[in-house]
Amino acid sequence: MFSAFCFSVFSQKREDILEIMARQQANWNSGDIDKFMEDYWKSENLQFIGSKGVVKGWQATKDRYFKSYPDRATMGQLKFDILEVDFHSKKSAWVLGKWYLTRPEKGDVGGYFTLIFKKVNGKWVIVSDHTS
Amino acid sequence: MFSAFCFSVFSQKREDILEIMARQQANWNSGDIDKFMEDYWKSENLQFIGSKGVVKGWQATKDRYFKSYPDRATMGQLKFDILEVDFHSKKSAWVLGKWYLTRPEKGDVGGYFTLIFKKVNGKWVIVSDHTS
Repeated sequence: MFSAFCFSVFSQKREDILEIMARQQANWNSGDIDKFMEDYWKSENLQFIGSKGVVKGWQATKDRYFKSYPDRATMGQLKFDILEVDFHSKKSAWVLGKWYLTRPEKGDVGGYFTLIFKKVNGKWVIVSDHTS
Repeated sequence: MFSAFCFSVFSQKREDILEIMARQQANWNSGDIDKFMEDYWKSENLQFIGSKGVVKGWQATKDRYFKSYPDRATMGQLKFDILEVDFHSKKSAWVLGKWYLTRPEKGDVGGYFTLIFKKVNGKWVIVSDHTS
């Protein structure tokens, strides 16, 4: 009974994370970087680790997205494959996934990402994003 | 008093992680990939995310290191800069760092890594390594 309860709680959390990832994909594919950024932690301590190094803070991460993806052709169509969701506590999770951008005009790109999600003020948010 | 105790416990854990990272650096610089691999989780579920994708399992990760770094000239001299250690629970931590390989013959390389450490059977081990 206790196990079943735990399983159910963890299963619900996993669904919460998958729902956010699906929403992120949809927001990107609507060309809406502002909405896409809503699932990132609005903090100076958000960390984005990309090919050019570490960007710290929500606003700097948002600026980086706008600079790297100035138009719809560059943004392309995003697809995530979520390979693993591992909860480290009731309020933190590690996510491993693959990303693909289909871009007929600019050339397709893709790679892997690992995210740390934390539950902050009752809401799951991405607190670090390592994309390669 | 309670706060001071907590601080002390977390501070000790941070030292434990930093000690492992220093040991890893030293083992690499002794040319000892076998010892270097001792701080990784000896499990099929260890995940290494590198430039060529995901390698799963301790043995496969070890094989990848031996294949990618066949001799001392390719291994070079490793230096880590640990930028952040964030504990998600008493038994899990996220580490962000920078790595540099100085290689007079092969050319210097470097980048960033994010690690997940977990305490398994009383010992801190790396359970996932995303290096880019």
